[in-house]
Amino acid sequence: MQPQKQSDKNQTESAVQALVALFAADMKDVNALILEHMQSDVPLIPQLASYLIASGGKRLRPLLTLATSQLISETTEPAQGLAAAVEFIHTATLLHDDVVDGSEQRRGQKAANLVFGNQSSVLVGDYLFSKAFQLMVQSKSLEALRTLSDASAVIAEGEVMQLQYQGNLDLTWEAYLEIIGAKTAALFAAACEVSAYVNNKPELAKPLYDYGYNLGIAFQIADDILDYDGKEARLGKDKGDDFYEGKLTAPVLFALEKANEDEMGFWKRTLEENIFREGDFETAAELVFKHNGAEQSKDIANTYIQKAQEALSGFQDSLLKETLLNLPTEILHRES
Amino acid sequence: MQPQKQSDKNQTESAVQALVALFAADMKDVNALILEHMQSDVPLIPQLASYLIASGGKRLRPLLTLATSQLISETTEPAQGLAAAVEFIHTATLLHDDVVDGSEQRRGQKAANLVFGNQSSVLVGDYLFSKAFQLMVQSKSLEALRTLSDASAVIAEGEVMQLQYQGNLDLTWEAYLEIIGAKTAALFAAACEVSAYVNNKPELAKPLYDYGYNLGIAFQIADDILDYDGKEARLGKDKGDDFYEGKLTAPVLFALEKANEDEMGFWKRTLEENIFREGDFETAAELVFKHNGAEQSKDIANTYIQKAQEALSGFQDSLLKETLLNLPTEILHRES
Repeated sequence: MQPQKQSDKNQTESAVQALVALFAADMKDVNALILEHMQSDVPLIPQLASYLIASGGKRLRPLLTLATSQLISETTEPAQGLAAAVEFIHTATLLHDDVVDGSEQRRGQKAANLVFGNQSSVLVGDYLFSKAFQLMVQSKSLEALRTLSDASAVIAEGEVMQLQYQGNLDLTWEAYLEIIGAKTAALFAAACEVSAYVNNKPELAKPLYDYGYNLGIAFQIADDILDYDGKEARLGKDKGDDFYEGKLTAPVLFALEKANEDEMGFWKRTLEENIFREGDFETAAELVFKHNGAEQSKDIANTYIQKAQEALSGFQDSLLKETLLNLPTEILHRES
Repeated sequence: MQPQKQSDKNQTESAVQALVALFAADMKDVNALILEHMQSDVPLIPQLASYLIASGGKRLRPLLTLATSQLISETTEPAQGLAAAVEFIHTATLLHDDVVDGSEQRRGQKAANLVFGNQSSVLVGDYLFSKAFQLMVQSKSLEALRTLSDASAVIAEGEVMQLQYQGNLDLTWEAYLEIIGAKTAALFAAACEVSAYVNNKPELAKPLYDYGYNLGIAFQIADDILDYDGKEARLGKDKGDDFYEGKLTAPVLFALEKANEDEMGFWKRTLEENIFREGDFETAAELVFKHNGAEQSKDIANTYIQKAQEALSGFQDSLLKETLLNLPTEILHRES
């Protein structure tokens, strides 16, 4: 395992770039499956789906399915349909999340719900979710189907739990980690685990699950840091989204732990009572900075990164394994 | 096949009552599965799910899975998980529909979206949909999984299509039948078809699909009639919902075909331009009555009822088959 140089952007970008390059041909096939399965005689469906899907995103989850599959097999072919299914589940979740959150931006463009309406976003999300299951059925692996339907249920549970904790300053670390474990890490985990089943190596399900799960936690913590860290490049969504939605995340949990009375009053007014004044987000970001929220969150994420890396210890050394080992650290230090 | 006496309510209620009685014990097991699978550590999920599920409804779709299963096998046991899955898909669809339509009532009580909020309804719908797939995976029939994931995609397509045709007076009969075929009949069809797979009689998939599909079309036309027919008992939803949502249905299509200039102006103002005045729904119901919209819609439904009945022609005669033959006519003439 090679330690990552955090200061060198080119270096830290290399794992995702390497994966994208390694699986360029395979992802082409996956993208063809995605395109094929988002078609419909009802024109709004491919219109809305392609608006979100074509807008990019790194396709990290299907890439993980391909990469973990290649790690244990000579070809990614049997995993390609599942990789497409994983991306459909992710896309369906994004569509519904943006409706639930009333999001205005996604991947640097106007959110689909604002362009096509909430109604269409709900229904096209349902369509993509169904298409994901069609693709899974084609894989003929009941274990993969079980894994991904379990993950889908857990994702929805995580989203409901997050909704219920909105504006609740009593959110514990345990509950926060449960929420991000469900809403984010579960799909990362399943995206990796299914490779074991579709390649007839069920004994590898556990380590692949562990790799994906811990990577997913680190990914979400990194995402949560980016929402407050003014020095990082803008995500493809508005800064301060979590703050204005009353979502308590790792950097804020640290700021809350050390908050004085005035600061607690600020957090209560904003997150809990939902009363916002001009400059509030800047104040929130300053308080996170003052209490070292981003750095401490990264420390937590690093414990998960270590677990992700340990999960791969039983796999034979290879360039691909090296890349997968570097991936979590790179994701934590990404700037967008 | 025994012709149904339409004037005798007790007589026309008997097929559903007979099915409910015949499968009381089996449905108890299905209900236990439903209850078990709607549990979650996130309390809002069983709260919201049970609000809708416990509020009743006839559970017609899972009942169809049990009945068609019994028709071809000695026990409904292998079909019970799928029956529960079918009910979960239906419930998830209702939750999302009510968000999309902004419904105020469902099954005679306040719609879940008004009690728990749109956000929760979207997410709990996703949860129930995922649980449906978990139940299907447990059935271990890839064919059943394919059938129900196909149906789920078709349902979403139908809902999107319906949304796109809202307020469009140019809706053709062909498009109307395509919409109700997708949003309603597809699940009735799948609910019956899966019995063939789970009982290892794939050769019966086609006739069971045909029975369910044609029954579903008749069911939806009956539902559409009830929304305008002032003489029938109230459904568990507000009268005039379809009208105020700009949904064009069978009785209105007949009224439109015969509309004079004034009447066309009325339909344009209301359905197309969405401008409503007091008494508009009463006027709409009068126009439907004037042009015999309900009776003519029933004539159309009867052609589907005949097809449903014909689909069972290859099955051995039995009391259960007799009941299934009577069911479509009874459903068409139901009062709620």
